[in-house]
Amino acid sequence: MDDTRILLAHGNGGRLMRELIANIFNLHLGNPLLDTDADAVALPPLDGDILVTTDGFTVDPLDFPGGDIGSLAVHGAVNDLAVAGAEPRYFTLSALIEEGLEIARLDRYIASFARAARHNHVAVVAGDTKVVRRGEGSGLYLTVAGIGVRRASARLAMGRIGPGDAILVSGPVGDHGVAVMLAREQFGLSGSLHSDSASVLPLTRAVRDFPDLKFMRDPTRGGLATVAHEIARATGHSVVLDQDAVPVRPQVASVCEMLGYDPYFLACEGRVVAVADPIAADEVLARWHALPEGQEAAVIGRIEVGGARVILETGLGGRRVLDELEDDPLPRIC
Amino acid sequence: MDDTRILLAHGNGGRLMRELIANIFNLHLGNPLLDTDADAVALPPLDGDILVTTDGFTVDPLDFPGGDIGSLAVHGAVNDLAVAGAEPRYFTLSALIEEGLEIARLDRYIASFARAARHNHVAVVAGDTKVVRRGEGSGLYLTVAGIGVRRASARLAMGRIGPGDAILVSGPVGDHGVAVMLAREQFGLSGSLHSDSASVLPLTRAVRDFPDLKFMRDPTRGGLATVAHEIARATGHSVVLDQDAVPVRPQVASVCEMLGYDPYFLACEGRVVAVADPIAADEVLARWHALPEGQEAAVIGRIEVGGARVILETGLGGRRVLDELEDDPLPRIC
Repeated sequence: MDDTRILLAHGNGGRLMRELIANIFNLHLGNPLLDTDADAVALPPLDGDILVTTDGFTVDPLDFPGGDIGSLAVHGAVNDLAVAGAEPRYFTLSALIEEGLEIARLDRYIASFARAARHNHVAVVAGDTKVVRRGEGSGLYLTVAGIGVRRASARLAMGRIGPGDAILVSGPVGDHGVAVMLAREQFGLSGSLHSDSASVLPLTRAVRDFPDLKFMRDPTRGGLATVAHEIARATGHSVVLDQDAVPVRPQVASVCEMLGYDPYFLACEGRVVAVADPIAADEVLARWHALPEGQEAAVIGRIEVGGARVILETGLGGRRVLDELEDDPLPRIC
Repeated sequence: MDDTRILLAHGNGGRLMRELIANIFNLHLGNPLLDTDADAVALPPLDGDILVTTDGFTVDPLDFPGGDIGSLAVHGAVNDLAVAGAEPRYFTLSALIEEGLEIARLDRYIASFARAARHNHVAVVAGDTKVVRRGEGSGLYLTVAGIGVRRASARLAMGRIGPGDAILVSGPVGDHGVAVMLAREQFGLSGSLHSDSASVLPLTRAVRDFPDLKFMRDPTRGGLATVAHEIARATGHSVVLDQDAVPVRPQVASVCEMLGYDPYFLACEGRVVAVADPIAADEVLARWHALPEGQEAAVIGRIEVGGARVILETGLGGRRVLDELEDDPLPRIC
């Protein structure tokens, strides 16, 4: 019996499961609210609207330049709350662990999760672990539910978007997608690019109470183009993106060129797309430029009346329609 | 391309994913709060202490006599809140789907989830879907986070348990474990036994405000014996179970005898173990016997001072120690 790896008995409710929870999950995530002996825990009173989100994480590989499944899971759930104008407060964490995973690796991912949670002032208040047989998982899948609070003043909604509004992004797009691709080494590619996986809270805090800010979203799976399609579909208007204005790192651009991908469809995990009244765009941009996370923020496009399409304006005055994503070039990116 | 099965592209954020969410998840789970276009949703004000739980579901097979992964997931999360004295209100649902799963089956499980949620007056307010490659999952894994409310009067805690307290169970133990085992057909066994998978809310509502009720737990993974060990470890006292008093169905007993299992370690998914002051045990029992779910409820044991062990008293006055579960006889039971 190899005691350095996860066994089925680590999921059976008995001694090994209890020790695994105590020695890894409770050790790293322990806080006064987390009671691993309880079926459900009571939260302290919450000051504001209660916001809820959930996200499953299946990234492959579990480690990538700039992060791992633990930090990614925290950032993903933090960011869903952040772009809704909220402050994250409490998380639940469910881990599906594959038989055979090295216990030291599990420890490392949960430690990474805990570090990122602390950094964002989030407490894990409930958890669950399951073990699946070898070949029925892929090392580790994590699911987070996030609870946050929002001051009533934040009125962000896709329905507020209208023609003429400006579209901004807080930094270069596609870094996470390409970093994970490079980590897989499946195309014989290598490089120094890091994922942008990070909390966007500093970015959203800086602008969320600004009355002319109408909407924020983090462009994860499906990338910037998919957020643009969501806006187009919900509003009936067209999203026009200026190719020259969208920040794309040279390494991302060259990987995309080699493999025939479009960087606008690649996942980010630490960027914000914002829509604002045009008179406010410069102010949003200034607030972002003042932050380390927003140095490369840019106004990248505008809303045009009607059409419900996503259009890319090229440098020479050309316009091409960006279709909705069909195929999946990159499964398990997050 | 087989359009009756899940493809990787159903997880990429694009058109197929959007249609899958609209045609299955939103169709069955839709309610005024669920906004599949939002990153996070705001909850209406909650009336009482807010309780939170999470649970991952990996049951194999996905269908078993008396339920499926959809209804099981609802009951599991409902019951975690119920035994804490709460009413479930809102769920989040994360689905990890394996490439190749028949879309009709996914539809059936989500419809089953929705039926059970409606039955328990629970609204799904946020969701997430991911698709993993063939061979990296096992059809479908679900993770639920549950939010419930508890009136301040419910003071249930393991710390209130003391010597002399009575231990009760709301019905026969081990049905779920054996039903799933039979559904696997792995031992050449078959039978008519159904899982006890069900909401325990009627049972917990009937007794939760009773001041002499001290603690409730649903004996899932690891069964009754594991709950007994949790009590023994937390209190330092011993849990004495009366073998003749613990209800076990004849089919469960005979499967256990054949395979060498102990029914006290097999999972239930619709039972409650309660600990009460001995003067109140008859009243708890009477309240449960008045319900269809509690017809076979029984007082099954008591707390003895010190020792921190779990002891089974046999009919002939013998006593044997029930050790903590070590091996896993039945992975993926829930």
